[in-house]
Amino acid sequence: MYKINDNYLKLPGSYLFSTIAKKVAAYSEANPDKEIIRLGIGDVTKPLAPAIIDRLHSAVDEMAKAETFKGYAPDLGYEFLRTTIVENDYKARGCKIEADEIFVSDGAKSDSGNIGDIFAQDNIIAVCDPVYPVYVDTNAMAGRTGTYDPTTEKWSDVIYMPCTKENGFCPEIPAKTPDIIYLCFPNNPTGTTIKKAQLQEWVDYALKVGAVIIYDAAYEAYISTDDVPHSIYECEGATGCAIELRSFSKNAGFTGTRLGFTVVPKDLKCGDVSLNSLWARRHGTKFNGAPYIIQAAGAAVYTEEGKKQTGEQIAYYMNNAKTIRDGLVAAGYEVFGGVDAPYIWLKTPDKMTSWEFFDYLLENLNIVGTPGSGFGPSGEGYFRLTAFGSAENTVKAMERIKNGKA
Amino acid sequence: MYKINDNYLKLPGSYLFSTIAKKVAAYSEANPDKEIIRLGIGDVTKPLAPAIIDRLHSAVDEMAKAETFKGYAPDLGYEFLRTTIVENDYKARGCKIEADEIFVSDGAKSDSGNIGDIFAQDNIIAVCDPVYPVYVDTNAMAGRTGTYDPTTEKWSDVIYMPCTKENGFCPEIPAKTPDIIYLCFPNNPTGTTIKKAQLQEWVDYALKVGAVIIYDAAYEAYISTDDVPHSIYECEGATGCAIELRSFSKNAGFTGTRLGFTVVPKDLKCGDVSLNSLWARRHGTKFNGAPYIIQAAGAAVYTEEGKKQTGEQIAYYMNNAKTIRDGLVAAGYEVFGGVDAPYIWLKTPDKMTSWEFFDYLLENLNIVGTPGSGFGPSGEGYFRLTAFGSAENTVKAMERIKNGKA
Repeated sequence: MYKINDNYLKLPGSYLFSTIAKKVAAYSEANPDKEIIRLGIGDVTKPLAPAIIDRLHSAVDEMAKAETFKGYAPDLGYEFLRTTIVENDYKARGCKIEADEIFVSDGAKSDSGNIGDIFAQDNIIAVCDPVYPVYVDTNAMAGRTGTYDPTTEKWSDVIYMPCTKENGFCPEIPAKTPDIIYLCFPNNPTGTTIKKAQLQEWVDYALKVGAVIIYDAAYEAYISTDDVPHSIYECEGATGCAIELRSFSKNAGFTGTRLGFTVVPKDLKCGDVSLNSLWARRHGTKFNGAPYIIQAAGAAVYTEEGKKQTGEQIAYYMNNAKTIRDGLVAAGYEVFGGVDAPYIWLKTPDKMTSWEFFDYLLENLNIVGTPGSGFGPSGEGYFRLTAFGSAENTVKAMERIKNGKA
Repeated sequence: MYKINDNYLKLPGSYLFSTIAKKVAAYSEANPDKEIIRLGIGDVTKPLAPAIIDRLHSAVDEMAKAETFKGYAPDLGYEFLRTTIVENDYKARGCKIEADEIFVSDGAKSDSGNIGDIFAQDNIIAVCDPVYPVYVDTNAMAGRTGTYDPTTEKWSDVIYMPCTKENGFCPEIPAKTPDIIYLCFPNNPTGTTIKKAQLQEWVDYALKVGAVIIYDAAYEAYISTDDVPHSIYECEGATGCAIELRSFSKNAGFTGTRLGFTVVPKDLKCGDVSLNSLWARRHGTKFNGAPYIIQAAGAAVYTEEGKKQTGEQIAYYMNNAKTIRDGLVAAGYEVFGGVDAPYIWLKTPDKMTSWEFFDYLLENLNIVGTPGSGFGPSGEGYFRLTAFGSAENTVKAMERIKNGKA
């Protein structure tokens, strides 16, 4: 008789955003007349930029002719995209990353889950708390997290690094030494970020203790503050200890178009085993490339027009972030993030729990946000709003908050 | 110090098609004047059909406007695609499959590797020999295959089911009971297939011993013979023991466009645990959907025009298959497959090994094929040619074979 992977059975409840979607659907069905403003899931709302649309159309036309039709893509992704990434995201920032260290994928969510495949089961992971749930859940599925305690909402074998108001939402070096450290800056969910000198401390620490850092830089395009690193490879020695995840979802609106990439430097070795080779093997065996037309569109993001147009979208969202920050502050909320990231992290009022505040917002103001506790125990008492709505809805949501009614 | 998944280190050499690509590149570089005909990798050459191109364009236009822009897709895939699949691929064939049993993905290769995630490490797998390498390699990566013996080219813990001329390339029930059985019909690499009554025996066996069948039906669109099942769910009881993998790569030319789906019936349970729920959890946590424009294009395959146009492409490729079969037979080769599948499986002449014949074809006739031994030890002495070339090149390749020179 076959056996299932019973690590799945240890997972508590369902994936955070599925739970939210179900709650909202139920409320919406019961109250069909209510106009709900969604500032919950980190999904973009602006259409794809004209330069991207144009390249999608021309790439589709290439697929219509035998001479330009593209079948299976190269294992690592098309070179035109990988070299463009290297020039723009790395060489331009002084990072020594080569094209054969870039692995094009269908998105950072897949990569952040799949990257665990190349590591042994008995590694100890460290995560920020609160944290993007995929890091923990995928490690739980791989049997790397021990047992789940529903009271503390913690896994026995995971090192949680609290990120709270007290430490400026920047994790501290943990007492116990981890093997794999997940860091995400600009951070999801807190919207806060890290200075280069602080990140350098993490790189130095990882090199010292022999840990690997999985660095999720999906939101780097939102950075406006000086001295905040866009890539972990801006730190000295990082190619010897860090894997970086990147996404086109938030900088170019590809949440429904799906494109990302992972950087695995050739310097990164466990003994004499190259992690670049391991990931290449995984990528070539369990994945078959992102669609050609999507990779072509990804390259269009880096053209002069593409940069200008996606830059305008980012500015639009960051203007929403300012609207939310200002609106919440004016209404007396304590607010974090939203300066170098499209997420605003707020302290719930009147000692409400995160889910109580979720229900309050949904039922009284018809606004959907994300309960901080869904991202980990230290997120309790916090709440995330995103800047990805329309400017009009964002302003309207802040009016509802100001007036205390929908 | 972090540890890698050392199962990766047990994998022999590199992925078959990467090895072939490197050999061909080296030959091509050394002989730039030679015109090489590629009948090796199973990659299509016909451009996407007009109905698909039209839908891609209109879907791209939807992504350009805020009112029709699509962000994150529903976890299982868009309902318009899943219901279309159910109507055409299942209900029309009398199979009781519902839309919430369909999981849309970026392709059958990813799914055939990822499906292993929901099973325990200590399941015993059975595979046909020869076999599509991804099934074995991904199980090796998961630590499910024991140790590799380079002499026999077998893994200690894998049940190999020889498919040879003697048994008509149809596997026999193995002596040792497996937990997970991989079956692929029409078969890659042999191009042969299975009758419904034979497949029913496998379903009955799996139900009896409590095994699960991973049924890869990526080539079903090539079936022309009556009484050959297009889906394993045509067999009685199969929803209680089988997962089916489907692809748009070969029926609609999506190798570089990436779309597939996996069927996990709600009837499929291990004790009281629903495999549908497990896969839904995996799908929702480690994957973020196929691009909207690609899913829209997938639905266009099922329109009246789409069916007609992709049907013509399949007929074109199957005409190539006939050219290859006839050409090889005329040249004195012993030939299998190529009737219900785009693959032709031939016995190498003069007791040449598969790789010797690969080198002979590449160097003397400038034809690229795939060595049978690359698919498993019982593939030694066989060779695979594919019908996915152009008609012109396919005819030219057969002339080279007839004349014994390029």
